[in-house]
Amino acid sequence: MRDAGDRNLRILLARAPEGVPVPEDFSSDVTAIPTPGPGQFLARTVYLALDPHQRTALGQGAERAGRLRAGEVMLGESAAQVTESRHPDYRPGEYVWLRSGWQQFTLSSGQEVRKIDPAVAPISTALGVLGLPGLTGYAGLLYLGQPKPGETVVVSAATGAVGCTVGQVARLISARPIGIAGSAEKCDYAVRELGFAACLNHRQADFAAQLSRACPEGIHVYFDNAGGAVLEAALARLATHARVILCGMASAYNLGAPVGGASLAAIIAARATLMGILAEDYLPYLPEQVRVVGGWIRSGQFRYREDLVEGLHAAPAAFCRLLRGQNFGKALVRVGPEHL
Amino acid sequence: MRDAGDRNLRILLARAPEGVPVPEDFSSDVTAIPTPGPGQFLARTVYLALDPHQRTALGQGAERAGRLRAGEVMLGESAAQVTESRHPDYRPGEYVWLRSGWQQFTLSSGQEVRKIDPAVAPISTALGVLGLPGLTGYAGLLYLGQPKPGETVVVSAATGAVGCTVGQVARLISARPIGIAGSAEKCDYAVRELGFAACLNHRQADFAAQLSRACPEGIHVYFDNAGGAVLEAALARLATHARVILCGMASAYNLGAPVGGASLAAIIAARATLMGILAEDYLPYLPEQVRVVGGWIRSGQFRYREDLVEGLHAAPAAFCRLLRGQNFGKALVRVGPEHL
Repeated sequence: MRDAGDRNLRILLARAPEGVPVPEDFSSDVTAIPTPGPGQFLARTVYLALDPHQRTALGQGAERAGRLRAGEVMLGESAAQVTESRHPDYRPGEYVWLRSGWQQFTLSSGQEVRKIDPAVAPISTALGVLGLPGLTGYAGLLYLGQPKPGETVVVSAATGAVGCTVGQVARLISARPIGIAGSAEKCDYAVRELGFAACLNHRQADFAAQLSRACPEGIHVYFDNAGGAVLEAALARLATHARVILCGMASAYNLGAPVGGASLAAIIAARATLMGILAEDYLPYLPEQVRVVGGWIRSGQFRYREDLVEGLHAAPAAFCRLLRGQNFGKALVRVGPEHL
Repeated sequence: MRDAGDRNLRILLARAPEGVPVPEDFSSDVTAIPTPGPGQFLARTVYLALDPHQRTALGQGAERAGRLRAGEVMLGESAAQVTESRHPDYRPGEYVWLRSGWQQFTLSSGQEVRKIDPAVAPISTALGVLGLPGLTGYAGLLYLGQPKPGETVVVSAATGAVGCTVGQVARLISARPIGIAGSAEKCDYAVRELGFAACLNHRQADFAAQLSRACPEGIHVYFDNAGGAVLEAALARLATHARVILCGMASAYNLGAPVGGASLAAIIAARATLMGILAEDYLPYLPEQVRVVGGWIRSGQFRYREDLVEGLHAAPAAFCRLLRGQNFGKALVRVGPEHL
């Protein structure tokens, strides 16, 4: 599994970004591959997830420090394969989800590690529709939103891992999913491939009017991955007793945008309920979600899209592209082959 | 009950106010007292309620028309006494709550009328702590906020009918009420008379720091009657799984103030739930509320304050004062004596 030439490539934070990060905010180094001690295992990264919420760890430039300091390895989650193990629960060849950071090899003591069953679905889904983003959409929709058959469910960032889960689960429980996305291409995909009843481009001038037409009974459940003006447009069209889920996964980078006072009046008028969600609270539901949605994936009723780049060196540019909203599907980096 | 000299004084909207109304926005006239037909009764107004939410019916001046047109009788709710009746359910001498408008006499067919039992508490309470404002505070706190013993309950406009209900019910179920009000006098009253654990003046420069100190475990339940900066300060201090009730009764006049994006991040971080409330949804709970809170009033455990002016002609100036936040207690107009 290892020879003298193996080295561990790592991507580091070079400096706290000002606003949207640029590739120059990152650097790299190469270290020796660590050796597992008793109770540890070594895993090689196969897929690295890029998530908008990772931005929040980086600080806001000179004035506001983040959790991560310059010179430290970027934080991130991976689907990885165990290569060596002195841990009783993990054997070489097994696939695991873990918090690897942006590097090729990770030493783990098994904390915050989950095994990935490659028979359920491709292992990359453990970072998307069968991982924390999918769990956010699944649990947020079903346990907080509680849509009934025929109710209108609106979700922003509809083609991402969270949004596509919300829309397709809504469809599969006979609710009526309406998507919001940022391009005609994404909207077309949402309707044709994901089965949304309609999908609206929020960059169009008459977006608010389109949203009203698409929701003649108002919005029963709104799942927000956007914040700002898109959230305001949805709040203005709530049905009575509407449920609104505010999702931290995708909107963290965009939270500077205020919500106008008119939205508070709309919340009161609708007697709506707004709820914040963090996926970690719903980890006990992950096996249920993997069983249910995994089954739908295998039967072809549930689809997803990945925006994959090759090689760890490509991660910084792909991350910057993601934060400009230019990805289409779950942003992933293929760091190594699935099978050695 | 009636002689040739009796006339019905009415207060009319003269023009849609620009911003905060001024007395010149109102006029008055005198008409004949109407005579009940079959199935109708006539009631004379004893107490007229002044409510901030009445402002929303008046429009915003030349540009935005309200529900009420110039020349129409001002909308409002009263505690009134039946003087003549051809309705089988109402007898002369009985007290009723009804939507009278700002006038001395009202003809009613019994729709949206509720009887007031003067043995429970003074009849004026039917417009305050035992009426829709009290119901908003009672049901909003208990059915939406669901505070547990020892939890910190924060309420703004703490000395009003809604706020004093929230604070005192919180105290009586062994939660810990923290008030927010707009003057040192109101804060002093909230602590000394209403039994709040503390009450903070939101006009003080270090209000936010005071709020943090008063809520060392964070805010478990926040009942908002203010909107704007006070709401933002509370959202920044939510405990995990906090419940926030947005009250339309008192904040309708103030909803122009936006809520910053940082508040959305706070809602997500706390996994908080925000809920809008309209008292009308909880009318089935009014008998429970009158029984419970009425009992506390009679036993001296629950107090309230009224800001009373004499005579219907004083209503416009008192209403303008209310909308400038200068009332102290439930704003009422005594239109006539309780007993003839």
